Amino acid sequence: MTYVTFPAEKPLDFVAIGRLCIDLNANEINRPMEETMTFTKYVGGSPANITIGMARFGLRTAFIGKIADDQMGRFIADYLQRNRIETSNVVTDRTGAVTGLAFTEIKSPTDCSILMYRDNVADLKLTPDEVSEELIARSKVLLISGTALAQSPSREAVFQALHYAKKHGAVIVFDLDYRPYTWTSPEETAVYYNLAAEKCDILLGTREEFDMMERFDANPEHSDAVTAGKWFDYSAKIVIIKHGKEGSIAYTQDGVGHRAQSYPARVVKTFGAGDSYAAGFLYGVMQGWTLEKSMAFGSASACIVISSHSCSDAMPTAEQVHDYIERCNRGEVTAS
Amino acid sequence: MTYVTFPAEKPLDFVAIGRLCIDLNANEINRPMEETMTFTKYVGGSPANITIGMARFGLRTAFIGKIADDQMGRFIADYLQRNRIETSNVVTDRTGAVTGLAFTEIKSPTDCSILMYRDNVADLKLTPDEVSEELIARSKVLLISGTALAQSPSREAVFQALHYAKKHGAVIVFDLDYRPYTWTSPEETAVYYNLAAEKCDILLGTREEFDMMERFDANPEHSDAVTAGKWFDYSAKIVIIKHGKEGSIAYTQDGVGHRAQSYPARVVKTFGAGDSYAAGFLYGVMQGWTLEKSMAFGSASACIVISSHSCSDAMPTAEQVHDYIERCNRGEVTAS
Amino acid sequence: MTYVTFPAEKPLDFVAIGRLCIDLNANEINRPMEETMTFTKYVGGSPANITIGMARFGLRTAFIGKIADDQMGRFIADYLQRNRIETSNVVTDRTGAVTGLAFTEIKSPTDCSILMYRDNVADLKLTPDEVSEELIARSKVLLISGTALAQSPSREAVFQALHYAKKHGAVIVFDLDYRPYTWTSPEETAVYYNLAAEKCDILLGTREEFDMMERFDANPEHSDAVTAGKWFDYSAKIVIIKHGKEGSIAYTQDGVGHRAQSYPARVVKTFGAGDSYAAGFLYGVMQGWTLEKSMAFGSASACIVISSHSCSDAMPTAEQVHDYIERCNRGEVTAS
Amino acid sequence: MTYVTFPAEKPLDFVAIGRLCIDLNANEINRPMEETMTFTKYVGGSPANITIGMARFGLRTAFIGKIADDQMGRFIADYLQRNRIETSNVVTDRTGAVTGLAFTEIKSPTDCSILMYRDNVADLKLTPDEVSEELIARSKVLLISGTALAQSPSREAVFQALHYAKKHGAVIVFDLDYRPYTWTSPEETAVYYNLAAEKCDILLGTREEFDMMERFDANPEHSDAVTAGKWFDYSAKIVIIKHGKEGSIAYTQDGVGHRAQSYPARVVKTFGAGDSYAAGFLYGVMQGWTLEKSMAFGSASACIVISSHSCSDAMPTAEQVHDYIERCNRGEVTAS
Repeated sequence: MTYVTFPAEKPLDFVAIGRLCIDLNANEINRPMEETMTFTKYVGGSPANITIGMARFGLRTAFIGKIADDQMGRFIADYLQRNRIETSNVVTDRTGAVTGLAFTEIKSPTDCSILMYRDNVADLKLTPDEVSEELIARSKVLLISGTALAQSPSREAVFQALHYAKKHGAVIVFDLDYRPYTWTSPEETAVYYNLAAEKCDILLGTREEFDMMERFDANPEHSDAVTAGKWFDYSAKIVIIKHGKEGSIAYTQDGVGHRAQSYPARVVKTFGAGDSYAAGFLYGVMQGWTLEKSMAFGSASACIVISSHSCSDAMPTAEQVHDYIERCNRGEVTAS
Repeated sequence: MTYVTFPAEKPLDFVAIGRLCIDLNANEINRPMEETMTFTKYVGGSPANITIGMARFGLRTAFIGKIADDQMGRFIADYLQRNRIETSNVVTDRTGAVTGLAFTEIKSPTDCSILMYRDNVADLKLTPDEVSEELIARSKVLLISGTALAQSPSREAVFQALHYAKKHGAVIVFDLDYRPYTWTSPEETAVYYNLAAEKCDILLGTREEFDMMERFDANPEHSDAVTAGKWFDYSAKIVIIKHGKEGSIAYTQDGVGHRAQSYPARVVKTFGAGDSYAAGFLYGVMQGWTLEKSMAFGSASACIVISSHSCSDAMPTAEQVHDYIERCNRGEVTAS
Repeated sequence: MTYVTFPAEKPLDFVAIGRLCIDLNANEINRPMEETMTFTKYVGGSPANITIGMARFGLRTAFIGKIADDQMGRFIADYLQRNRIETSNVVTDRTGAVTGLAFTEIKSPTDCSILMYRDNVADLKLTPDEVSEELIARSKVLLISGTALAQSPSREAVFQALHYAKKHGAVIVFDLDYRPYTWTSPEETAVYYNLAAEKCDILLGTREEFDMMERFDANPEHSDAVTAGKWFDYSAKIVIIKHGKEGSIAYTQDGVGHRAQSYPARVVKTFGAGDSYAAGFLYGVMQGWTLEKSMAFGSASACIVISSHSCSDAMPTAEQVHDYIERCNRGEVTAS
Repeated sequence: MTYVTFPAEKPLDFVAIGRLCIDLNANEINRPMEETMTFTKYVGGSPANITIGMARFGLRTAFIGKIADDQMGRFIADYLQRNRIETSNVVTDRTGAVTGLAFTEIKSPTDCSILMYRDNVADLKLTPDEVSEELIARSKVLLISGTALAQSPSREAVFQALHYAKKHGAVIVFDLDYRPYTWTSPEETAVYYNLAAEKCDILLGTREEFDMMERFDANPEHSDAVTAGKWFDYSAKIVIIKHGKEGSIAYTQDGVGHRAQSYPARVVKTFGAGDSYAAGFLYGVMQGWTLEKSMAFGSASACIVISSHSCSDAMPTAEQVHDYIERCNRGEVTAS
């Protein structure tokens, strides 16, 4: 059964808007950052990672964002281009903004944290008039990410992009990706998450992220069905609620909750799991696969990323994901 | 025919959210402000003026806003209370904000301007968690005003109020009241005006204000019908588009454009015309009058205010408006 | 005995740098501001008032400051020019700053307060490169005022002016005029007051103002002699410490404390007393009078101002001050 | 001849105030930063480097500064402590500030640049009331650095420290260390550099830095003698003006310009040269050596640092510097 129809005539498969930054991943892992002496540089940011994942799967992709006018910004643009991601709408800041940084600390595979540099960052300076209507008009899918709603003018740029996507019939995906820094208050967060979510076709988030959005609503038992039902009253066709180790459930308008198989992994760190899952799932849905198969493909994709040192650079090809699934099915992969 | 149904069981007729400020009106008029030596102090702000107008008509009213912790703020609260407007949700700022000021300059009845003090003003510091759900739950009507969308956290407070009004079934009125100061860019303005307008039942604005909102849409001929039609696709039931001296037109979902009689006035200044028109019109609609009769009542109410020195303090009673209309009908009032 | 020598060859007698603002004085006095309905507009700001006072005494004066590009700013420039104060270095702001406001509340002759509007004000936006070296080079006296040190870039403009005054041999007067608003902390205040005071020839302030500056020093008994002695180690020649009703004492490097006669007044409000005292005293010193006679002239000048409704506009001529002293000496003036 | 006398009875040799940050030095050198993949983390900041240098020489040292409440801040505090630098006055920020970063790019030994992260940094948030008078009272030397003057409240903290140093008789050293970022304008910079320099005993800077300070003075030929003479009129005893490859000259109040031998080095990068020179020179002066010997010691110390990958961590011991000088004298070291 088809839950979402993608406009087949559009030449571009996928465009995302939002954060582009640099991950500085600790090379000496399993220790506190105080004792880490060297870091390796990668492109980062949730929508950037997802777009890189989609490009690795062979889709035609583009990005809408803003980079600093410095060596870090140029590294990001160059990396996207080398991954065949269209950067015509990646604007260079001229106000002296810097590139956002995320230093990762890997104390153990399950105890990971991030030290963020988010003051005066270029990605939050994208303005609504810089968003290309033409680019969105020729894309099947627009993905937005919650972090880009955290500050003006990036916030308005996202709403502008939503307006264009609605106008031109793109399928809209909202990766909630809630991170408290840069937000002023929980109330502010909930207001804009809800305004954006009302306009989206596919929502992906954790139970905690949906709870944050429901702070003004009546769902005292944190029921997934109540949550999904609320969004079906607006534009949503698929609502994925992630429950960590217990797995994810994809709700559809027919009231069905879809679950899928998960796979073992030798975990290095947990960063990047959500982004690679999102890329794998969306790829499957765009191929016309069942939700279950799409979710399984997302899970396997995530397993590959969390077994690696980076988020973006570790994004697999479709062949690698299929291969991983087969090896799991043959019992060749065991959890760490 | 009834275009909007008000929830009769609610005890409060009308609540407005937004700007509360001080007007300092030139006493020596028909000259530039440089030559004005004394000023008279009045309560001001578009939603405040409309609420005062509704209270003068005998309705049960309340206000949601924020005042400075100083003499000006206390003057405002006291004035509202003396007009029997409920102030339980008029919050006092504790951060050292000041009361917004509007010095009026009346060079001639048709050449009026305003010198605004809008830095660090209390009214824009209302936060979403300060908005009383309980108050909105017991009100038939919520009026929002565009100025309160101009900055955070007041912007989020308005969206919070809209959420409560939707949840509890209040009729929502949007007085566009667009003023460029405090807004960062036309794109930012259009984004939030549109997000708010999508949730409203009655929209009132000038042709220029609707043009500002339509900057991303296709309405090259500035057609009122196209404009109104767009909003009927969302929540709107009545869209009033004001054309200055050519009068206003009220569009309804049945495609009809309603016009009404206008009245002569001996104009002192033009300030306050829109606020008194809005109060008069809404009062009429809430009485169950036809749109034509409601609009005429609004026009006559506006005539009384623009013949006076103040905006708020000159708001008439219903009896005074009826009397004005009768005198006009008898030919006793002539234009200045 | 001469304590300070003024460079006689300079064509300009007096230039001041700092705050230019608008006073809005309550017309209905002896009541709280909540009940005041009308206000009268005057030029205000301590250094502006002193300069107006000096101009009324017939001296050749100029002002260094910044005004808003609006009706209030133009009113200020016009008023200075009508008082024959040179405004070649009164710069017009182009960033959208406003004119500072001071609403006065006169509950009783001895219970007066001020409601200030000091956000985004033009006077604090004067930059060091806008200060005219040429103007200071041709002036006998430079007067600085503490309020202008409260924020950048006005703070740096004052230090720039001090540098020029030192370089060209102007006598430097520091009217402490400490007002807590716009300052971040007492420590910040003390740091800049001390850095400025080290370069000044004549210091005028209240005991409380000198205490604020001495927060890092050892003067536990608040001794005037210790205070004055500290500044004589830097550049000071005369230090005037004001003790309110107990009168002022002028300390000189020879260790003498000079006191002078005071006069009765029918007090309307206390605002403006310090500014008119400073103008009167400096005028006397520049005439070569004894400190005692100069202080008495300052006191009489202050009596005239506090018996009137305004600060700036009430500044007397020298003839009026002499006349007031004579009338006092004849017993024709009695205190209110 | 002794040019400066240090208060021998004080238990602490040296305290510095100012910037504490993290250097992230490119591991893959001789290429643009876009192509650098990994970075090594070091403690950085000019006054921190100098203090580490002094500690390596065996002096009793302390630091006055502010660190972020995160892993980077804790790494800095720990590194200082491991170098036996007293950190009782290294305050931890509680406002969410971050640690300043400096990514170094080494395109070639002579083409080095830095990418700075200076938004919302902890070191500029040190307040005047956090500066320990007691610590300065027991120190022979206070070193200040220009960067700490760039913003409030750190700016006021430095002036506060200068006040305490004057009061308690510490010798004050000013390492100009001018870096344009974070300063608003050249005028602002010159104002505060001059106010601080007036109070200092030893000034160290490049010809360009002294030119920046003299923008309001008459020294059209950029004469070192004129520059030095100006500061001798205030508090200065020694003024060192650095002319890059042409070497440095130390001016003393007797009008003499002292020059010293320089040494060859196999240069990896130029960063850190000034800091190690300052540490070496001050160490020599505090030992009672001639200025010539002290300057030579500083030069050799700098040679060691620029031959290494880091600034702080490469600071040599006195024995290593003496050894380097001997090897140079034996012809065993040749330039790269």
